[in-house]
Amino acid sequence: MNDTVGELTDQLLASYASAGGINHLDGKNLPSQRAIAALAGDFLRLLFPGFFDEHVVHSSEVRENTASLVESVLRRLERELYKSLEYSPPPAARKAELRKLARDVAVEFVRCLPEVRDLLQTDVEAAYGGDPAALSQDEVIVAYPFVEAVAVQRLAHQLYLRGVALIPRIMTEWAHSRTGLDLHPGARIGSYFFVDHCTGTVVGETTVIGSRVRMYQGVGLVARSLSGGQTLRGQKRHPTIEDRVTIYAGATIMGGDTVVGAGSTIGANVFLTHSVPPNSLVLTEEVSVKVLPKGARGAAADYQI
Amino acid sequence: MNDTVGELTDQLLASYASAGGINHLDGKNLPSQRAIAALAGDFLRLLFPGFFDEHVVHSSEVRENTASLVESVLRRLERELYKSLEYSPPPAARKAELRKLARDVAVEFVRCLPEVRDLLQTDVEAAYGGDPAALSQDEVIVAYPFVEAVAVQRLAHQLYLRGVALIPRIMTEWAHSRTGLDLHPGARIGSYFFVDHCTGTVVGETTVIGSRVRMYQGVGLVARSLSGGQTLRGQKRHPTIEDRVTIYAGATIMGGDTVVGAGSTIGANVFLTHSVPPNSLVLTEEVSVKVLPKGARGAAADYQI
Amino acid sequence: MNDTVGELTDQLLASYASAGGINHLDGKNLPSQRAIAALAGDFLRLLFPGFFDEHVVHSSEVRENTASLVESVLRRLERELYKSLEYSPPPAARKAELRKLARDVAVEFVRCLPEVRDLLQTDVEAAYGGDPAALSQDEVIVAYPFVEAVAVQRLAHQLYLRGVALIPRIMTEWAHSRTGLDLHPGARIGSYFFVDHCTGTVVGETTVIGSRVRMYQGVGLVARSLSGGQTLRGQKRHPTIEDRVTIYAGATIMGGDTVVGAGSTIGANVFLTHSVPPNSLVLTEEVSVKVLPKGARGAAADYQI
Repeated sequence: MNDTVGELTDQLLASYASAGGINHLDGKNLPSQRAIAALAGDFLRLLFPGFFDEHVVHSSEVRENTASLVESVLRRLERELYKSLEYSPPPAARKAELRKLARDVAVEFVRCLPEVRDLLQTDVEAAYGGDPAALSQDEVIVAYPFVEAVAVQRLAHQLYLRGVALIPRIMTEWAHSRTGLDLHPGARIGSYFFVDHCTGTVVGETTVIGSRVRMYQGVGLVARSLSGGQTLRGQKRHPTIEDRVTIYAGATIMGGDTVVGAGSTIGANVFLTHSVPPNSLVLTEEVSVKVLPKGARGAAADYQI
Repeated sequence: MNDTVGELTDQLLASYASAGGINHLDGKNLPSQRAIAALAGDFLRLLFPGFFDEHVVHSSEVRENTASLVESVLRRLERELYKSLEYSPPPAARKAELRKLARDVAVEFVRCLPEVRDLLQTDVEAAYGGDPAALSQDEVIVAYPFVEAVAVQRLAHQLYLRGVALIPRIMTEWAHSRTGLDLHPGARIGSYFFVDHCTGTVVGETTVIGSRVRMYQGVGLVARSLSGGQTLRGQKRHPTIEDRVTIYAGATIMGGDTVVGAGSTIGANVFLTHSVPPNSLVLTEEVSVKVLPKGARGAAADYQI
Repeated sequence: MNDTVGELTDQLLASYASAGGINHLDGKNLPSQRAIAALAGDFLRLLFPGFFDEHVVHSSEVRENTASLVESVLRRLERELYKSLEYSPPPAARKAELRKLARDVAVEFVRCLPEVRDLLQTDVEAAYGGDPAALSQDEVIVAYPFVEAVAVQRLAHQLYLRGVALIPRIMTEWAHSRTGLDLHPGARIGSYFFVDHCTGTVVGETTVIGSRVRMYQGVGLVARSLSGGQTLRGQKRHPTIEDRVTIYAGATIMGGDTVVGAGSTIGANVFLTHSVPPNSLVLTEEVSVKVLPKGARGAAADYQI
């Protein structure tokens, strides 16, 4: 047994030495997925007080609760930010300054929470107002995956704007895993945003979305796949969606020059690779419907499409 | 440090006072997501005895195990139901009656588990019978996300029919998060149902699905997005799918008047907004295929579509 | 109360007796979902050393860490393999041999980890090289759901090739639940594979994928739905994708005889049910764009599509 373990260990160590691109040994400490997941959960509690606690939160205790959570969140976020800054330091920063910089970014981040709350209030209103299946704004907050995903994106976007490495993407991928909604931290998303059902919808890094945009599951706001690869970093590669656009399930809109004009509706499963003017209605061609003769098959499922 | 925490706390409290629509302070205690997730897990153990336990369950101990689990589940469900009834009490109910009502609904709910099991047995048979990749019904139960999602929907539907607020949707969103399959608790779903792969499929609140319907990932049975919003609550907004229909991946079927006739097949990525008669075969137009000249580009990925 | 619990328990036991197809009582012990999830997490730590640990891993301690993890993984995998072999023993195996067989398969499995690492290094390179949103290979490994999903599939494929029941599928469904990417353990997947965004993409059991294939979210490489059902097991039912093919979001490619020729590009939301030659560009028909007259409606969302 010990021989086998030794032999298997040797083989793995040899592999670590030869295929080294997927090791992380002796390197800088990376931000921890687990710590960032716990932080994201606590940010949600600060944004929506009383919704994600097991017991009723009374106004009389809200100051004490909030102060205690703010202190904890600042300390833990600072630690992860320090790892991120050590991993990818700003151009002119000296190592001694990184600790202070991590502290400053953590404080700035918590300071912007009220502004993020203002935006989220519009998102919750949009979700409730447009969905007859929603019984109350409370139901939207406790049960709709969209609220968690958009809250985490709007938070991660604040870190993205400050040039923080790794953490924003780890945050949005945490929400992506839980909700199926993949909102890149770089995307600029206007107020009164709503994505119903969420699963499979993707919003790419350089997407710009106006106000009162409503989307459904499986929508892609994506980039062309080009051999340019890494040379395209920083260029606008994802579309612009103007105000009051509705995009139905499964539509894919592609390219950095593509603009969907205000007030447009994009039908389900459209693949759009060019701009359309305001108030456009974009649909795929009509489907073909054939009624099959009786006895041509057992059940429809047998028909060879 | 303490000054900073105090200042950030003050700003958050000011935000709680001004953007109050997304607070839940001094309110009724809401049903707990965590408690409902734990309950859902225990319901699955009651429905599929022996599958989700770490050790073999012997017939000799099954009575004792079941009684103990039933007692625990009743007590915890009653507590969450009480919160739900307090949050949204039935029209003529007095506060003193809510405790008894919570108890009654919990008992009624556990009483309908055998009926739910009968339906689930048909679903597992449909999954196994139609999927050559399934090696046994056991594999379907322990490894197919569909089983968990449909079991939770059929349970949540029982609470939905009894007018319970919040809990049914929290249950189905728990399953949605784990499986990618978003089945609204309001949907009426017939026997021998199967959704293969699950991810991204959405079945809306007022959908009616017949018997032996088979669907794939990314299918949407959805409502039109109308400015009517909340005024449409209670109306039939989602389609009716008759018996023995097959719906391939990514098809979106929309609208409360839309009926897909029995025995029909809907091809992948169809967007259907009107009814079709029985035995219809519905397809998008044929795709266009161009073979590109050699040297026109490096790899196909470079071609500017 | 006790009367009620007793009565509800009796009803459930009666249901267990009558609808027995979804019980697992007195049976063989099934592999545990929880144990396999924990194993999969540890396999990822062995494959990507240093990435999923809370602290920096130094070269000086890597041997000791690795040996300890290898020993633990071998022991736990052997236990789950034994349950799988007991559940579905190889044709001529005697019961006394199963313990040794479980041990042998566990050792063989760990022995192939270096080979799996070589493949995963090409996948990470493909992900990084082709995605301008990726800041570093480190970000790809810690934040991209694809890495987890493809690593688990390549591991599960090794068990699938050795005829192990239940465990491979439980492993890939664990990754499916976390990433939205459903890669069947049976699929044969070449090097430099990448699926961006992941959610909703499905790769079926008998799919064959060449080298340098790039796909997006919502892609289905699937089988026809035929009444043959279980009689088709073992036949090639899913498509073949040759080298350097790009498949955009939401495309569905169906059938065991369907071959997508090398260097082809498949547009978003295509439904392809026949083969195409090398270097094909496959698109759905052009979408229709109508600009609606002003005042024809309030917002685009009101338009009745």
